[in-house]
Amino acid sequence: MSQSPVSRVPINLVDKLAQFSDLWSQKKVADLNDYEVKLAKLKGEFVWHTHDDTDELFLVISGRLTIQLRDGDVVLEPGELFVVPRGVEHCPVADEETAVLLLEPAGTLNTGDAGGPMTKAAETLS
Amino acid sequence: MSQSPVSRVPINLVDKLAQFSDLWSQKKVADLNDYEVKLAKLKGEFVWHTHDDTDELFLVISGRLTIQLRDGDVVLEPGELFVVPRGVEHCPVADEETAVLLLEPAGTLNTGDAGGPMTKAAETLS
Repeated sequence: MSQSPVSRVPINLVDKLAQFSDLWSQKKVADLNDYEVKLAKLKGEFVWHTHDDTDELFLVISGRLTIQLRDGDVVLEPGELFVVPRGVEHCPVADEETAVLLLEPAGTLNTGDAGGPMTKAAETLS
Repeated sequence: MSQSPVSRVPINLVDKLAQFSDLWSQKKVADLNDYEVKLAKLKGEFVWHTHDDTDELFLVISGRLTIQLRDGDVVLEPGELFVVPRGVEHCPVADEETAVLLLEPAGTLNTGDAGGPMTKAAETLS
């Protein structure tokens, strides 16, 4: 069986971030097995929610992200990452517009168990 | 059952990179479900190898990484990522010292199917 050619195009995070401006809308930029690498722009406060089945990784690219936990806050500057463990309620908030890289299994819903109007499926960036 | 307190310490990639200097030695900085987030410093050429069971993500933090594939090269600058698909033979090479973030399932061997003297299990950074 012949293998299809492998894409050899690097994914430039700054270029990808320039392709969209909507807030709280996850954009998939790569697949890793059954995980998705996504970008998002955040400003303001999200909703408190929990992912019962998966950990969730946040890596801040620009801006400043506070991940509120019931025990206290985690503040992430650019170049800093944090993994919210499965089952831990959290609520992201950003005073200024903040760009993040997210990593979690495909199909993970942004609002987890909370649902509501901010629920949105990830879109794929071209 | 009471839940143990969640660590609220962000992982600063530059600080973690300052904790080691050995080349081609993966250092785990976080777990994400059954995946590991690792850092490594690379300089020179690695070995050609394949991971038959998993994709492998490279994100360049500093320096410049060339991922040689049999079809041609992928060149990654800081802020660029690339996923080597499972089953695709590759060989990283860096002319200057280059820092990368790696993401793949726990237990993935750095040299894949190739083995040899550069084979080394990932270590955990404190």
